Amino acid sequence: MSAYHPLSEAQAIEYARQIPNLFQSGSELTSHEIGDGNLNLVFRITEKASGKSIILKQALPYAKVVGESWPLTLDRARIESEALIIEEGLVPDLVPHVYAYDADLALTVMEDLSDHIIMRRGLIERNEYPLFAEHIGRFMANTLFFTSDLGKNQQDKKIQQGRFINPELCKITEDLIFDDPYRDAETNSIEDHIRDAAEQLWSDSELHFEVAILRQKFLTSAQALLHGDLHTGSIFIKPDSTKVIDPEFAYYGPMGFDIGAVLANLILNFAGQEGWSKDLESRKAYRAYLLQTVKDVWTHFEANFRALWNEHGVDRVFQAPGYQDYFIKNLLQDTAGFTGAKMVRRIVGLAHVADIDKIEDSAARERAQRLALAIGTSFIRANRQVASIDELIAIVTKESAVERGFVL
Amino acid sequence: MSAYHPLSEAQAIEYARQIPNLFQSGSELTSHEIGDGNLNLVFRITEKASGKSIILKQALPYAKVVGESWPLTLDRARIESEALIIEEGLVPDLVPHVYAYDADLALTVMEDLSDHIIMRRGLIERNEYPLFAEHIGRFMANTLFFTSDLGKNQQDKKIQQGRFINPELCKITEDLIFDDPYRDAETNSIEDHIRDAAEQLWSDSELHFEVAILRQKFLTSAQALLHGDLHTGSIFIKPDSTKVIDPEFAYYGPMGFDIGAVLANLILNFAGQEGWSKDLESRKAYRAYLLQTVKDVWTHFEANFRALWNEHGVDRVFQAPGYQDYFIKNLLQDTAGFTGAKMVRRIVGLAHVADIDKIEDSAARERAQRLALAIGTSFIRANRQVASIDELIAIVTKESAVERGFVL
Repeated sequence: MSAYHPLSEAQAIEYARQIPNLFQSGSELTSHEIGDGNLNLVFRITEKASGKSIILKQALPYAKVVGESWPLTLDRARIESEALIIEEGLVPDLVPHVYAYDADLALTVMEDLSDHIIMRRGLIERNEYPLFAEHIGRFMANTLFFTSDLGKNQQDKKIQQGRFINPELCKITEDLIFDDPYRDAETNSIEDHIRDAAEQLWSDSELHFEVAILRQKFLTSAQALLHGDLHTGSIFIKPDSTKVIDPEFAYYGPMGFDIGAVLANLILNFAGQEGWSKDLESRKAYRAYLLQTVKDVWTHFEANFRALWNEHGVDRVFQAPGYQDYFIKNLLQDTAGFTGAKMVRRIVGLAHVADIDKIEDSAARERAQRLALAIGTSFIRANRQVASIDELIAIVTKESAVERGFVL
Repeated sequence: MSAYHPLSEAQAIEYARQIPNLFQSGSELTSHEIGDGNLNLVFRITEKASGKSIILKQALPYAKVVGESWPLTLDRARIESEALIIEEGLVPDLVPHVYAYDADLALTVMEDLSDHIIMRRGLIERNEYPLFAEHIGRFMANTLFFTSDLGKNQQDKKIQQGRFINPELCKITEDLIFDDPYRDAETNSIEDHIRDAAEQLWSDSELHFEVAILRQKFLTSAQALLHGDLHTGSIFIKPDSTKVIDPEFAYYGPMGFDIGAVLANLILNFAGQEGWSKDLESRKAYRAYLLQTVKDVWTHFEANFRALWNEHGVDRVFQAPGYQDYFIKNLLQDTAGFTGAKMVRRIVGLAHVADIDKIEDSAARERAQRLALAIGTSFIRANRQVASIDELIAIVTKESAVERGFVL
């Protein structure tokens, strides 16, 4: 079974059976392929007697997005597996446990999280997750700090960076986030009713200038090992637990890119409340929850990150008076810019979010899209100026309540 | 001869003889080991009949600096050889030709440049090199542009970056340039008569803040494949030719680090004129030449770099109006900071420069040291503000002529 081939369900069972200390020998196992087949096979293997289950995730040698298919490196399975193992070493409660990784088969065997739901769905259902901000703030603080030059031996960091050169998946980000939305690209997916707003994006040279700054940071700023795709579809959640999955985009990049992914997807859902909230009161309440969460995510991140820096900083020079504040201010500014870029691309770019696209009422959907674009572009414009998370919150409030005539 | 062992002169001849199309078969070859034995063996192999000669450079598995010896990776020979080959592809007239590279023996066979002299010596002898600024400006513009995300396919750049993870040699830079000079480190080498100035460096927390910013850039800003050690001791020169050698510190870092190395070493020689110029008139004349060269190096670099960007830019997004100017301004600011850091370390750090250390008159040497420290620290402080090369020139003029009471 060593040469790569996509596994059948029977082969997946056979494979799982070989892993030591997982299932009772000879026990009955069942398998269900539960992936969407676009990028990976995902088998859930269950032991009938105990009910114990695991996930076997195998990379496919191609990607299918919106009908197109292109070859994609199997090395992303190694990257995902190695990133998960590094993350587990830092925040064991916040990622699925990895039981095994098979390089030849591009396959990772990991903890089954089917008692959780995908957070994007949870937000669309307007659930509240009071522990999420603490969890994700701690996840990002620990994974970003301890893989960076602030918290990791700087020679070991370079060697680790060499293992996370991830050109193919970075290319997807570079095109879909930092290029295509700002020109009339074939890959874009734009609803007719917001074509005017898209065209405005394409002709706004001041915005292009700010996007160039963000693109350059993504390409060159090797601050920390990023998750690289930390949207709410990469988070499994239930009220008392948060698990970050799917780090196949992991690479050394600017920390604000991960933080921005979380904030952007919270704010996209905020915009989507145009279509999801049944009445004005419940919309206001859920939006207030989301905005508080945006603020709390940053606050928990910052508090954790500063504490790690003070207690576990490996670098004498970075203890210079004022430098930590300067670093955090720059990080918030990067976060603002990346948040905006990630919002814009979800409205006019190739891959959208269900929080907005699944709104059936097209007038409400259009309001949500325009609101997301207004907030996103304002965040991009703020990327070199913003000085506090409250200023970012104020942008959301202003764009939704005042400028665009929407009721918060 | 495949397992690594340091070559004898006879073995060096034998090795050179095997290289195709180099020497006549059976011709008499002589070898002289001309290295200083600190890091590498350097054999010059000459064919008696034709006078043709080549250099065979072999890395030693240790480094000796100021009596100390520590193990050092032989992989630096690969890095040096690969960097030379990349540079030769971009600016063939400005680097020695590589005839062969042997990974097992950590050995590079290259063009002999013994008709050139080391530029540091040339400057100490107060020679003028009217083509140097154009040469080095073009060298840096081409090597930095075409290895960066501005001029190279961005996926290929990442893969190339993975071949230039250079932790051991980066560690030397990180310690000796961005840490030790700013604390009472054992590795520092400080003359008693400037101990007060060194202690001032150690207690200046505003300076430490700026050094932290520069250190972070060196650690994380993977803009381009740097030479990594581009001082005047890494440049062979004669009036009509400039050859950049010894890129064993090559890695992906901030462009301003290379430019700063060139400017710093010109200005260190400027400071050294306290001891070298025979009379006031000749000192003024040579300093004027050096300052003009500092300006010309930047000007040639900038003009070449902008032309390459306009003609060979690979990235649509970076054509955004105003972005090139913004990038160049930031690059000048980085250059200012790195210039300053490289000057300071040559006065109080481990490795000094002959331009200053070889001044016999200790009062003149002290004046040169204090002037270099004053200019260096001013450059570091200017790293986030400077807006033109003329402002940097003005700092040099001011520190030498006005504030410190020296005559330009």
